[in-house]
Amino acid sequence: MSILIQQATILTMQETEAPFTGDIRIEGNRIVQIAAHIRPQPGDDVMDGRNKLAMPGLINAHQHSPMSLLRGFSDDLKLMDWLERKMLPAEARMTPEDIYWGAKLSIAEMIRSGTTSFADMYIHMNEIAEAVTETGIRASLTRGMVFMEDDGGRRLQEAIDLVQRWSGAANGRITTMYGPHSPYTCPIEPLREVIAMAVQQNVPLHIHLAETKEEVEKIRSRYGMTPTEYLEEAGMFEQSHVLLAHAVHLNAADISRLKGMRGGAAHNPVSNLKLGCGTAPVEAMTAEGITVGIGTDGAGSTTTLDMFEEIKAACWLQKLDYGDPTRMPAPRALRMATRGSAELLALQDEAGMLAPGYKADLILIDLAKPHLKPIHDVEALLAYSVNGADVHTTIVDGQVLMKDRKLLTIDEDELYREVNVRAKRIVEGI
Amino acid sequence: MSILIQQATILTMQETEAPFTGDIRIEGNRIVQIAAHIRPQPGDDVMDGRNKLAMPGLINAHQHSPMSLLRGFSDDLKLMDWLERKMLPAEARMTPEDIYWGAKLSIAEMIRSGTTSFADMYIHMNEIAEAVTETGIRASLTRGMVFMEDDGGRRLQEAIDLVQRWSGAANGRITTMYGPHSPYTCPIEPLREVIAMAVQQNVPLHIHLAETKEEVEKIRSRYGMTPTEYLEEAGMFEQSHVLLAHAVHLNAADISRLKGMRGGAAHNPVSNLKLGCGTAPVEAMTAEGITVGIGTDGAGSTTTLDMFEEIKAACWLQKLDYGDPTRMPAPRALRMATRGSAELLALQDEAGMLAPGYKADLILIDLAKPHLKPIHDVEALLAYSVNGADVHTTIVDGQVLMKDRKLLTIDEDELYREVNVRAKRIVEGI
Repeated sequence: MSILIQQATILTMQETEAPFTGDIRIEGNRIVQIAAHIRPQPGDDVMDGRNKLAMPGLINAHQHSPMSLLRGFSDDLKLMDWLERKMLPAEARMTPEDIYWGAKLSIAEMIRSGTTSFADMYIHMNEIAEAVTETGIRASLTRGMVFMEDDGGRRLQEAIDLVQRWSGAANGRITTMYGPHSPYTCPIEPLREVIAMAVQQNVPLHIHLAETKEEVEKIRSRYGMTPTEYLEEAGMFEQSHVLLAHAVHLNAADISRLKGMRGGAAHNPVSNLKLGCGTAPVEAMTAEGITVGIGTDGAGSTTTLDMFEEIKAACWLQKLDYGDPTRMPAPRALRMATRGSAELLALQDEAGMLAPGYKADLILIDLAKPHLKPIHDVEALLAYSVNGADVHTTIVDGQVLMKDRKLLTIDEDELYREVNVRAKRIVEGI
Repeated sequence: MSILIQQATILTMQETEAPFTGDIRIEGNRIVQIAAHIRPQPGDDVMDGRNKLAMPGLINAHQHSPMSLLRGFSDDLKLMDWLERKMLPAEARMTPEDIYWGAKLSIAEMIRSGTTSFADMYIHMNEIAEAVTETGIRASLTRGMVFMEDDGGRRLQEAIDLVQRWSGAANGRITTMYGPHSPYTCPIEPLREVIAMAVQQNVPLHIHLAETKEEVEKIRSRYGMTPTEYLEEAGMFEQSHVLLAHAVHLNAADISRLKGMRGGAAHNPVSNLKLGCGTAPVEAMTAEGITVGIGTDGAGSTTTLDMFEEIKAACWLQKLDYGDPTRMPAPRALRMATRGSAELLALQDEAGMLAPGYKADLILIDLAKPHLKPIHDVEALLAYSVNGADVHTTIVDGQVLMKDRKLLTIDEDELYREVNVRAKRIVEGI
């Protein structure tokens, strides 16, 4: 199977390359050529790229995909009311089949808004892996583990099963991580054991860090250190590749501790805004050379999974925080959502960039819209004007998952019927 | 001409009314009936409202519409570099024809994203009025006036001409205001004269207020008072209806001064974020009973004119500012963007709400999208999930301006050709 995209505006996200007009050739699941003009070959699926922009698919570096079933169920509440009175009781009612349909709903939204890979932490990961396999998206899957009221034995076993069963599945589209949930839900002994296992198996780690001020206070009163110090104390940054979700409340010493780490931090600006958590020190982390990617967090808080909205919000938050519009310029935010997130998912040699040899994970944006005219600066347009609904075509692993806004691997009518009935049942009486 | 919308989910924005399923009948330019079931009459244009949500069109309470020609031209710059090195030289090159096409580009984007009325302050207002007349949108037009280097005689005369020629034009779709630009560009004597004239003619005022910290410092060093005190000193709040744009840097005493004012403040959250200006005290103003509406500001700073994005950003900013997710809940933000803005434009008896007798300014939102499923709470969905691209139909003054995402009063191909050529010429070499 081969695809030839002709005469698109191409933003490769390679370091020094300005946008240019050209062709992209895909064979199987890889990009094989990018050039000003490429001659079509017999059997090519030829796509007209005129008035369109081709760029790497966006990579959502932190998600809880089944929570789309709870979108809008408990907005505008205090964080603890949101969690304890609404989210936890609702989640407790979710069956494995609900998880499957919730994940599929999120995947449908992600494909439609230009996301080609995501990092997911949840439960019932077999069902999520099935949804990923069927729909054609790329994902790094993590079974979240809390170790508070017991030794987490079943959860740990499920995490091990996930890694063994699904790593490399679906033509390599599925990768896996180990996911101790957070400093405040993982005492140091089980945390050390998970880290040791991850190092031994060469599997990355995915953990929440310092999302709220309350978490920082809790860890300080429990262990006399910051959450970041606590993870360092557990040995997390010694040999592991780590995906740190949120990283909002870090002080300067915390940031220094993360310097040189493998992996990096997933910034979730919309979730942090919506829950009133605060502004992550993205500029400061970046200045120290720490990789920062962008994620949406679950739709239970963020509501939508539109990574273009996250890119805007990431720019806005740093500008507001410093009172300085030169902070977080457009190219940097685009880089975070592509190459930055790719590094967090350990996909930096395969995704997040358009280049021969890279996996064919890319999107075409339809530029024939009033809010995308005129074009003075392609990157500014992408960061500040484009939204997910402007994505025309989404390709993952060489397969076209959406064309002209039509999903090709998901039956939307069936999906809406399923999620409406399930969502209603899940929240009834809560 | 009559329209019957059948079996839509209806959010009237009337005080106590929850969303319900029903029909809306429009005759001429007014809503005549809203009920569970309305019998079609001969000649009705019948629209299927199933899987759609009907609500009042959004009202953009502060805009500089021709600046869409400069969208993305100078992002990520310091405010003074943005203004003096980029915006002012580019604006100086704009011809009246450029203004017309820039306004039309903004109007195309507004209609497509669900805005049915806007308040505009710019120059060459005849051309903007022509664009409003042709396209079918509703607008409150203001000739911005600075009085720094001369007495502003020509500008004042153009403002008077605008009010005399265009008030009530286009079947009443056009209204006008007087627009002294800002405290820092208007010495007190001409400001007093404009206020007196506005009061005498019963025409509202539209002015920028306290957008930046620098403005507050400038006015303090020049007059020894805050910008708000300065406007009060000029007598602005005594008898006039006033639309205050931005109102970011107000202290508690400033807010007290505005208590009881006619009109109110237009919050521009995305512009304030993007330029790093700060967070307007929206919760505090609202608590004092001051009406707050929402605007986008010009696309030269904000980049897009999607009022649904502004609604999200308005919610996020207050939550972030207070560190409290219960601040600015969804229904309040929706109210600001409809009834709040309507009050600022002095349209509160005609727009911002769906009710018999009100002007038929309304939108239908297509709910058959993954990011709008499931529906737990209609208002949360509208505030946090919907974006401008979800708008299916836009009706202003009883005329359908967009149906199924197709603009019916604007030739998009011609529009894009014109704005591309003009934008390129305007910025060349700047």
